Amino acid sequence: MSTAETTESVSAIVALDTIEEFLSYLSPLVDEAKLAFTEDGLRVAAVDPANVAMVAVELDAAAFEDYEATDTTIAVNVSRFADVLAAGRDSLVQLWFDATRRVLEVQIGATEYELACIDPGSVRQEPDIPDLDLDSTVILEADELSHGATVADIAQSGDSTRVVLGTQTGPAAFVMNATGDTDTMDITLEADDVIDLQVGGDVSSMFSLDYVTSILKPIDDDTEVTVDVGDGYPTRFELQFSEGFGNVTYNLAPRVQT
Amino acid sequence: MSTAETTESVSAIVALDTIEEFLSYLSPLVDEAKLAFTEDGLRVAAVDPANVAMVAVELDAAAFEDYEATDTTIAVNVSRFADVLAAGRDSLVQLWFDATRRVLEVQIGATEYELACIDPGSVRQEPDIPDLDLDSTVILEADELSHGATVADIAQSGDSTRVVLGTQTGPAAFVMNATGDTDTMDITLEADDVIDLQVGGDVSSMFSLDYVTSILKPIDDDTEVTVDVGDGYPTRFELQFSEGFGNVTYNLAPRVQT
Amino acid sequence: MSTAETTESVSAIVALDTIEEFLSYLSPLVDEAKLAFTEDGLRVAAVDPANVAMVAVELDAAAFEDYEATDTTIAVNVSRFADVLAAGRDSLVQLWFDATRRVLEVQIGATEYELACIDPGSVRQEPDIPDLDLDSTVILEADELSHGATVADIAQSGDSTRVVLGTQTGPAAFVMNATGDTDTMDITLEADDVIDLQVGGDVSSMFSLDYVTSILKPIDDDTEVTVDVGDGYPTRFELQFSEGFGNVTYNLAPRVQT
Repeated sequence: MSTAETTESVSAIVALDTIEEFLSYLSPLVDEAKLAFTEDGLRVAAVDPANVAMVAVELDAAAFEDYEATDTTIAVNVSRFADVLAAGRDSLVQLWFDATRRVLEVQIGATEYELACIDPGSVRQEPDIPDLDLDSTVILEADELSHGATVADIAQSGDSTRVVLGTQTGPAAFVMNATGDTDTMDITLEADDVIDLQVGGDVSSMFSLDYVTSILKPIDDDTEVTVDVGDGYPTRFELQFSEGFGNVTYNLAPRVQT
Repeated sequence: MSTAETTESVSAIVALDTIEEFLSYLSPLVDEAKLAFTEDGLRVAAVDPANVAMVAVELDAAAFEDYEATDTTIAVNVSRFADVLAAGRDSLVQLWFDATRRVLEVQIGATEYELACIDPGSVRQEPDIPDLDLDSTVILEADELSHGATVADIAQSGDSTRVVLGTQTGPAAFVMNATGDTDTMDITLEADDVIDLQVGGDVSSMFSLDYVTSILKPIDDDTEVTVDVGDGYPTRFELQFSEGFGNVTYNLAPRVQT
Repeated sequence: MSTAETTESVSAIVALDTIEEFLSYLSPLVDEAKLAFTEDGLRVAAVDPANVAMVAVELDAAAFEDYEATDTTIAVNVSRFADVLAAGRDSLVQLWFDATRRVLEVQIGATEYELACIDPGSVRQEPDIPDLDLDSTVILEADELSHGATVADIAQSGDSTRVVLGTQTGPAAFVMNATGDTDTMDITLEADDVIDLQVGGDVSSMFSLDYVTSILKPIDDDTEVTVDVGDGYPTRFELQFSEGFGNVTYNLAPRVQT
């Protein structure tokens, strides 16, 4: 290793709940992830192995109790890190990166855990996220989406399943629907049923239900989610956490409608 | 299809809890069931594939918020219907039968679900229920029966199991008992232990424990159940729901005592 | 059977919770156990099939609502006895030993259960417990130990796992640690972190994590556990229950450190 590496440094204290929530948004898509610390905060971008869904999670330095970092990118096993936090018996976590041994030291109360870092080069590189200008935008509570996913699954009897997300103009509404071998389901949420609705036309795109269900799983029922949809385009789910200091964006590629 | 079918019609609004409870009493015995709507209300009678247990569930038109029906019999997949209700995000359900497409439209809040109907001819025909005059009758809370089933299972170590239900005259009591390879269990509920007790003699009949356990599963612990038993005869469990507008009757055939 | 056996007698009434808790401390290690009743109370000593862990549970006669016994040793299936208690619908249990039929009659409310006794000769004989004088002693809440076991498991990724228990002198602390293929964990509990700490030196012993986890499972999180440890010696966990009338001691053999 070159001496240049010794400039990498991370020393931070953060609420256990906050860093746990951060990791929870990665778990549905990846086992390993690259944590990029900069002086502004922590950012992770990742793509699932099938290249269908991307996630970017950001946590501002202001969300930490204490935060000092130079540009440092480390890769870790997400679920093992999450397990250590879940077992934590204190409300605060201290993180310190040992650049020489390439170990993330995780201190929670009397417990010190050394999480070995992975070679960042072995972690799947996330593609650039296209800056799509999608037609319609709805803001609604996460459980409206989860409910749609649940009923779509029933209508398709648990077979390899799809769900269509879109908007309609007459009357203006966000729509979710699914068609099984015998049953169908349609959810029509008009402006009064959601927090905000901007309809850009009669548009719809079809998505893998498994991905939608996985992405929604860690999101609390009453979390406000902003959904952008187009016609045959990817969809984007966006939400805030940690009193607005945290931000999560999912981009999900559409399935071809048959 | 003949034009006569166009006279079939169902249009009803009912509390989600009520129709969910209705279906819950069918689930232990059958996957598919025929729903018979008349102007008086809804009735289902069904028998399990092994012909051991019959169930009849009735819900009076007065239990509905709104009810209009001509004689209409449709067959549905019980668990799929129950799943749609379980996912419901509103307290009311609107049911409407599309006689042309033979689809039951289930509307719950913003969610419209089209439940395809099955050919009623493909659903097992329930036998006539013999009007047995059984010797003894006890009224007790459902969890007294569930407790008996649990302990009977322990005594028989989970092997193919039986439970005996009966009454004794000295002192007057409702009894449940089971005999395993090494252990035995006896429950003796006298008049003071139950809500009502009418003993017609020293009688007992043996039943499959699996059936008893299945039948009891959807019944709330504190529900009053009327149990009629005879000597080597079927037993009958009866209970009310929906403030008395709903009625459930199970008839369970005895096993031969060895 | 000889007439001498007719002198065996047990007749007792005890709180269901108390006898349930008694059995819960045996369940992690053995399926069958010998219950030794004397006029002073009930005592069980048992060793697991691999001869790694011993348990002794004692319940003073004063913990019973009513207690009369001559020297009587019976062997029973622990989990079946526990299941009958778990299903109990009353706060008191009446125990009566039928010496002629070698059956333990368990009466809970209206339920009478006859638990067949096993031949005590068929139950593994417990070895004498060596009266070790271990170096260090810590008293702490059970969940401190459970937490250590959980994190040790994470560090070793669920492989065949070990945990080291010990004490250090500078600063004085009770320590738990584990080393996995890539990660490590260290818990250091100083005097302020525990209820009491007596450090006899820098000592440590390694144990099978599976045994530690099993032993801790029935113990309530806030139960005070006294842990005695030495250097390469067995460890001893001791706790009280039933307002001090019950006592539990586990002795766990060390694994050879590699």
